[in-house]
Amino acid sequence: MADDAYDIRPGEEAVQLPAKTDAGLYFIGRIHTPWTRREDCPKNARESDAVCTIEVDARWAPALKDVETCTHLVVLYWMDRARRDLALQVPRHYGEQRGTFALRSPARPNPIAMSVVRLLKVEGATLSVVGIDCLDGTPLLDIKPYFASTDAVPEAVTGWHAETKAKQE
Amino acid sequence: MADDAYDIRPGEEAVQLPAKTDAGLYFIGRIHTPWTRREDCPKNARESDAVCTIEVDARWAPALKDVETCTHLVVLYWMDRARRDLALQVPRHYGEQRGTFALRSPARPNPIAMSVVRLLKVEGATLSVVGIDCLDGTPLLDIKPYFASTDAVPEAVTGWHAETKAKQE
Repeated sequence: MADDAYDIRPGEEAVQLPAKTDAGLYFIGRIHTPWTRREDCPKNARESDAVCTIEVDARWAPALKDVETCTHLVVLYWMDRARRDLALQVPRHYGEQRGTFALRSPARPNPIAMSVVRLLKVEGATLSVVGIDCLDGTPLLDIKPYFASTDAVPEAVTGWHAETKAKQE
Repeated sequence: MADDAYDIRPGEEAVQLPAKTDAGLYFIGRIHTPWTRREDCPKNARESDAVCTIEVDARWAPALKDVETCTHLVVLYWMDRARRDLALQVPRHYGEQRGTFALRSPARPNPIAMSVVRLLKVEGATLSVVGIDCLDGTPLLDIKPYFASTDAVPEAVTGWHAETKAKQE
């Protein structure tokens, strides 16, 4: 890849990707955010109160029926600039080697990002939301209602991260 | 589709799918559950305490480093038998027409399911988890650490669902 930001760092490990993919995705819209450069994106979605907009393609607009009754949504989107071959990564802001599946980094075999967003309003096929951290123009894959009963686990702990934070304090 | 269970019901609306897909997915493992028929699957993942296993392909096993420090994970998987063209659906157990993006139904343009699971153990490239509701053999797409700080919203409400439940009580 041409962009230095996407080069491999010491301690990172890439695998050989399969020769072909197994299933296909449709881009069903675009996400508009204030961020046009990777380094400007918030490190995580709760870092910013920026209102972002999700433009759903006309074809899928009828599928938005009843979405306005949700306070929160799960949004899946495609991190189309991310490497897909990293098994071990050294995130710049932590500096330690971690497995890809223990990280929320966009670099992963299937670079599908998941954000829980707060829904502000629905106007036609445009949703205004808070809680997205991606580049402007990112392809949309899915919108789901957030169910606190199955999706909210306030007591969950990501051990390596809790330890890192404790060391920093 | 041959299977009656996947036929369209009165009140449902299908759209014309695009001629081609926009991106490709790799299946990176398989999920093993006790359910081999669609009608046996729990309606949602919290309905069952069944221990399911996630088998990650050998190629991606190194990416599991540090995952054992997580109490909960976000698991993305591919509902490979679902219709992809439904914009409006009438779920059998609710009986009312809803937009696809207001439902967690597997039928959606990109049938990517998202479950928050409790991690019991990691042995080699096999994870034992509680909280999955899919058919045995379902293709795995991604594993992410669950961060309560960004992913847990206990106060979230899905209005149409809360109303339906209130009517039933």
